[in-house]
Amino acid sequence: MKAPAALEQLTAALKRLPGVGPKSAQRFAYYLLQHDREGARLIARALDDAVARIRHCVRCNTFSEAEVCETCASPRRDAGLLCVVETPSDQLMVEQTLSYGGLYFVLMGRLSPLDGVGPKEIHLDRLLARATDGQVREVILATNFTQEGEATAHYIGELLRARGLRVTRLARGVPVGSELEYVDPGTIAHALRDRRIVDD
Amino acid sequence: MKAPAALEQLTAALKRLPGVGPKSAQRFAYYLLQHDREGARLIARALDDAVARIRHCVRCNTFSEAEVCETCASPRRDAGLLCVVETPSDQLMVEQTLSYGGLYFVLMGRLSPLDGVGPKEIHLDRLLARATDGQVREVILATNFTQEGEATAHYIGELLRARGLRVTRLARGVPVGSELEYVDPGTIAHALRDRRIVDD
Repeated sequence: MKAPAALEQLTAALKRLPGVGPKSAQRFAYYLLQHDREGARLIARALDDAVARIRHCVRCNTFSEAEVCETCASPRRDAGLLCVVETPSDQLMVEQTLSYGGLYFVLMGRLSPLDGVGPKEIHLDRLLARATDGQVREVILATNFTQEGEATAHYIGELLRARGLRVTRLARGVPVGSELEYVDPGTIAHALRDRRIVDD
Repeated sequence: MKAPAALEQLTAALKRLPGVGPKSAQRFAYYLLQHDREGARLIARALDDAVARIRHCVRCNTFSEAEVCETCASPRRDAGLLCVVETPSDQLMVEQTLSYGGLYFVLMGRLSPLDGVGPKEIHLDRLLARATDGQVREVILATNFTQEGEATAHYIGELLRARGLRVTRLARGVPVGSELEYVDPGTIAHALRDRRIVDD
């Protein structure tokens, strides 16, 4: 006995989602066919639409429907500040702080030589051209504080400083709401080194 | 700052997959757009195809492209045996044993009054009609050995026995390859009660 061809194909297709294996793909397929055929059609439409309409902003490289994304096109943004993040989700997190008014560059990845991700894959040539447009005063490196994120920040920082730009990195320190007793020593060491003068 | 509309819609659509929340949906969307646009198109096609072509077999209720599925249409199957399972995956598992040559009825669910799943939702009227076609000699209840699966088996068993059918249930016992020391007492109790005569 075999499952119907259309069902086999759907399961095979759903396996292309990241982290979805044969069991999950089958569960998705059965669920949609049994309980949510409207949802299945909706997902199909949304996929086609997104593939057709989403491209990368020519200035900041984030996902965008227009050639230049809304953020880059906004006249209210400070063009002297450029924040470098790994992904659009990271960009959203920075935006949610409501404490940054500059522009962005989204790498869409991080340096990871073992996975074949080098300077070209994270569009460093475009970042360099963007950062040296004469308007940018400061580049804030906001890649993740993982090994690969740190290496990426270091590499980009070197390149940009060689071009005479002011380069900063997000502060490492004790997270808001945490008790020192439960914070790892490495973080406290960083918080000590980056301590700030109390000046109200 | 907001994500582009087509991206927001894709993320919202992917949340309809079972067990997929906002974070996973966003991860799926970003991954497909960044790394596998071909995969996105493929999933969209497969979803449309499956929704258009997959229906339920009129005899056994499993997913099928034809009015009567391959298994039900096969002349090599013993029409005197009917195995009742909860889902097409369960049916596949029984098939994989290569030790069953009868037919199936797939409930596409289990009785679960709290979730609004009653006799109608698992198509018991169709099962009764199917089991009393005059050809079926024995109905094998192969619902899961969970609380809901057991309740479903009990309920169906009562109905079928009242119609004079021979009704059996999969044996409960010690799983192949397991050591008694690590099997739960309930299972051993069942294995004792259902013990079989050694006759080679």
